[in-house]
Amino acid sequence: MVRAMFVTPPAGVPMSMLTRIEAALEHHFTLTNTHSAPPRLMAAMRHAVFPGGARIRPQLCLAVAKACGEDDAALTDAAAIAIELMHCASLVHDDMPCFDDADIRRGQVTVHKQFGEPLALLTGDALIVMAYQVLARSGRQHPARLVELLGTISDGVGAPDGIVAGQAWECETRVELSQYQRAKTGALFVAATMAGAQSAGVDPSPWRALGDTLGEAYQVADDIRDVMLQDHQLGKPAGQDATHGRPSAAADLGLKGALDYFNQLMANAVDAVPACESRAAMRHLVMKESERLVPPSACELIAQQANAAPQRVSA
Amino acid sequence: MVRAMFVTPPAGVPMSMLTRIEAALEHHFTLTNTHSAPPRLMAAMRHAVFPGGARIRPQLCLAVAKACGEDDAALTDAAAIAIELMHCASLVHDDMPCFDDADIRRGQVTVHKQFGEPLALLTGDALIVMAYQVLARSGRQHPARLVELLGTISDGVGAPDGIVAGQAWECETRVELSQYQRAKTGALFVAATMAGAQSAGVDPSPWRALGDTLGEAYQVADDIRDVMLQDHQLGKPAGQDATHGRPSAAADLGLKGALDYFNQLMANAVDAVPACESRAAMRHLVMKESERLVPPSACELIAQQANAAPQRVSA
Repeated sequence: MVRAMFVTPPAGVPMSMLTRIEAALEHHFTLTNTHSAPPRLMAAMRHAVFPGGARIRPQLCLAVAKACGEDDAALTDAAAIAIELMHCASLVHDDMPCFDDADIRRGQVTVHKQFGEPLALLTGDALIVMAYQVLARSGRQHPARLVELLGTISDGVGAPDGIVAGQAWECETRVELSQYQRAKTGALFVAATMAGAQSAGVDPSPWRALGDTLGEAYQVADDIRDVMLQDHQLGKPAGQDATHGRPSAAADLGLKGALDYFNQLMANAVDAVPACESRAAMRHLVMKESERLVPPSACELIAQQANAAPQRVSA
Repeated sequence: MVRAMFVTPPAGVPMSMLTRIEAALEHHFTLTNTHSAPPRLMAAMRHAVFPGGARIRPQLCLAVAKACGEDDAALTDAAAIAIELMHCASLVHDDMPCFDDADIRRGQVTVHKQFGEPLALLTGDALIVMAYQVLARSGRQHPARLVELLGTISDGVGAPDGIVAGQAWECETRVELSQYQRAKTGALFVAATMAGAQSAGVDPSPWRALGDTLGEAYQVADDIRDVMLQDHQLGKPAGQDATHGRPSAAADLGLKGALDYFNQLMANAVDAVPACESRAAMRHLVMKESERLVPPSACELIAQQANAAPQRVSA
């Protein structure tokens, strides 16, 4: 499993995004884990956050902030890891028995399997709140920016259109499919790009489309991988969409159709990078990310399958 | 069940605290419930918040803001209802099968019984985030105050010492009793008094002791009522502390001892009201609240029982 987005950054793009994110997470965990904290809760919170996955969302946030002329690194770091903490919280709650009942996540035992359901529930809650504690600690230099960040990040998570609402569409009798997909994954990608701009004190609206398109592409890539890969390659249970009867691009379009759609979305994402000093570098990054999400070897395999059975491939 | 704190306010204290709170909650629910929101999630969120309990914490926040010379009513309202939304979220999650597995709350069916476990889990998450959305919407006039409020309210909820951490102490093999009690209830009362001061732009530290003492008194009163009252009087299952083997002042000290301790705490709370213009009114409010929490009839009953069996009354 490739762990880092933008593994080989082009000239002019700093090497240290992943290092920055891990350092900021460690820093804020140290501040949270005082002598009065319940030790098992803190252990469960760390278990949910370390080791991380690809840290795509916080890296996206940092990359946009840099492109917008970042001038308050602590605030950018806070925005980026607040988004990552929200993502980790959603994974902990989504893995619980009343949803996916998953045993593994990021290649290790899930939080509720390791620490029990009560602590898993509280861990998700505490990580959501920790995201805001991180923001509160880092917002004194630019309080007006913090107010904007607070709105953007919260809207990416809560009702009516954030990832929690996206998950809640699975509990509705009638699902609005586009709202479901956009909210479940896209909302936090939109928050990542917009928060990157806001942490640099810049109007975030030109950055919405990039987050939106990348979020949808990421969801389609996830659907493709859920069909193609085994549990150990995925680091979580495979075949979950079919098991839970969830909407999936691979099920709707077939693998080849889903791949074509993914490639189109990534091309749209490249086009969606707004005018900025490092536009060429940003576009390059998006293209590299495309290869990480669906590697060329997988594309080849899907093409071979499509040629062998030219009718629509059922997932 | 008496639903309102400070039902008959003394001269000089506005009648409208409860009205303000309900109006602010309704206002923010209207903003959250757009056409794109999942309808059952929104229904579950409303179910968790309306009709309310005594709304003690937001009323405390408003009362302190008023005492501190409130000058931004929308910000005070936001702080107050953010705290109430956090409280409601914690009740939804605490009622779930992996904790109390409660069927009733505030006299109505609990959220997971009405809407199922998945939506109850998401409802708690969405209410936590909604608390911050409310703050984000109301902070633009005084962004620096908002940064402070964000820290105070988050610390009242999350790790290491907030109500989520308090609940997590129940999952530890070794419980730090004082930390458990202080975190589980006191933390959000401290947030309520301090946020009241901060929303008025005033140093919150003199108001910490009042919140701390009232929070402990409230927990002791809750322990007493859990032993003395029936389910229908309490609006939730009675006898939960004994059922779950939770620490309880009534179990530790007997009912008479717990009542004595409660009275001492309320006297301390009256003393803890800092110097402010409306100090006399605030002290009067605290005394009235004392009578609401443990009514004179209950005090009389406990005294009779203690006289009949002068040894320590076991709970």
